[in-house]
Amino acid sequence: MLIDGKGLSKQMDASIIEKVNTLKSDGIDPKLAVILVGHDPASQIYVRNKHRKAKLVGIHSIDKRMPDDTTQEELLAVIHDYNRDASIHGILVQLPLPKQIDESAIIQAILPSKDVDGFSPVNLGRLFANSDEAYPVPCTPRGIMTMLDTYKVPLEGAHAVMVGSSNIVGRPLGAMLLNRNATVTYTHIYTKDMSSITQTADILIVATGVAHLIKGRDIKPGATVIDVGMDRDKAGNLVGDVDFDEAVKVAGKITPVPGGVGPMTITTLMQQTLELAEGKFSQQRQKQSVL
Amino acid sequence: MLIDGKGLSKQMDASIIEKVNTLKSDGIDPKLAVILVGHDPASQIYVRNKHRKAKLVGIHSIDKRMPDDTTQEELLAVIHDYNRDASIHGILVQLPLPKQIDESAIIQAILPSKDVDGFSPVNLGRLFANSDEAYPVPCTPRGIMTMLDTYKVPLEGAHAVMVGSSNIVGRPLGAMLLNRNATVTYTHIYTKDMSSITQTADILIVATGVAHLIKGRDIKPGATVIDVGMDRDKAGNLVGDVDFDEAVKVAGKITPVPGGVGPMTITTLMQQTLELAEGKFSQQRQKQSVL
Repeated sequence: MLIDGKGLSKQMDASIIEKVNTLKSDGIDPKLAVILVGHDPASQIYVRNKHRKAKLVGIHSIDKRMPDDTTQEELLAVIHDYNRDASIHGILVQLPLPKQIDESAIIQAILPSKDVDGFSPVNLGRLFANSDEAYPVPCTPRGIMTMLDTYKVPLEGAHAVMVGSSNIVGRPLGAMLLNRNATVTYTHIYTKDMSSITQTADILIVATGVAHLIKGRDIKPGATVIDVGMDRDKAGNLVGDVDFDEAVKVAGKITPVPGGVGPMTITTLMQQTLELAEGKFSQQRQKQSVL
Repeated sequence: MLIDGKGLSKQMDASIIEKVNTLKSDGIDPKLAVILVGHDPASQIYVRNKHRKAKLVGIHSIDKRMPDDTTQEELLAVIHDYNRDASIHGILVQLPLPKQIDESAIIQAILPSKDVDGFSPVNLGRLFANSDEAYPVPCTPRGIMTMLDTYKVPLEGAHAVMVGSSNIVGRPLGAMLLNRNATVTYTHIYTKDMSSITQTADILIVATGVAHLIKGRDIKPGATVIDVGMDRDKAGNLVGDVDFDEAVKVAGKITPVPGGVGPMTITTLMQQTLELAEGKFSQQRQKQSVL
């Protein structure tokens, strides 16, 4: 069975459009700031897709471009301005950043209450600790959880294996699955006997950036396979980290590339921007001061 | 081979005493505030052990006791006072708290730069994201990592299995092991076929609170077994989550109970308090403001 990320994202878009209109009639204009430093070709495509989707659903988006040689201080100044601007509800900085900029300092400079990408340590910490509060989370993992739930993939007691344990996908998604009582295994390039591990997965998440890394024989018959890859094969075609033609014969459910994870990431970004504009996340309501 | 946590903690204590004396000669008096709400018997023992160790190593410790019916606001007021008090370097609130108090709100009220237990979301988030900064971490996991490194247990590519995935031990320890390139599996009460999973572990961490949960047959021959349990058997003896008499015949290395994890937790708390007083953690030096 194909997990139709593209189709699901379209349904969600329709719902988001309605909610955006409701917000606007209440006098709130949801606004997302997207900062792109440099000219990485993949980043330019991702940013373009984010703005297109924002336009579709009625969210105003700021398309902030900065040159390759932007300094850390210059980028921080822009973030500080957006933090202060009450009309901006979500701020994201497209990664990766050029080498002269410390990514971690940039991520931590974004107000946690505008952290639409969910990468700020305080929000990642809430996710990691399964906090009862509402807080923004990374969008690719959240979109994947939406697909798993929509397709009624059982999570409690299931064995979920992360192939690739990045901060952007593998780690937060593993935490989300653990929070739903899955047994979670994190693997990476140092893992030994990868195939023997992937073959025990009821839910196999593949996010490595290696085209067709996972073959049919690596998959447990009937497993749910989520392919997060967006790679180019030798002919220049867009393919995933999973050999789809082999995997589709073994897996119970599988996301195609394209048309699976990608569209759900973008739509989830819009969903989360909307929620920030609606004020749904605790820290926006908290007047807690520690001094 | 026994992993002698007690012996290792004594060596570390000697080193901490020297460093505390150095700090004092530089005019800094390390001070730790320990808040205990209510009369949980185990908590009283843990708190007593913390104060005894602080006295031994020369760290001044505040023994703040509050009654069972303390309100959340009353506890927050104490934390706010300690946050403001420049002479206090580390603040910890002994868990669990009585039901009328929201643990998460309390943990988040402690200044991250005084978060000696490492439970504040921003510090957990740094751990989860493998941040390059220095930041406080939970002490039981950190003490376990010290034992693993001291006993030269290989981590990179090893399979580490967490039996029990609490916020205090399993989750942060799994993150620490993942940050050292171990393959990490998180299990819990919803995990199916637990024994088939534990038998694949090169490093088995058992933190469940269930006496003698893990038997000899659950352990891979030659594995390193870390028993975090502190339970009472039917006769009232202190035992671990691992059946030691069986396990010691199978495991390569194993921590005894008592004399393993427990002493290392307390000493690590002192080590981390010292480091907070020394100003070693980034956020103490950061003048970063987000507004």
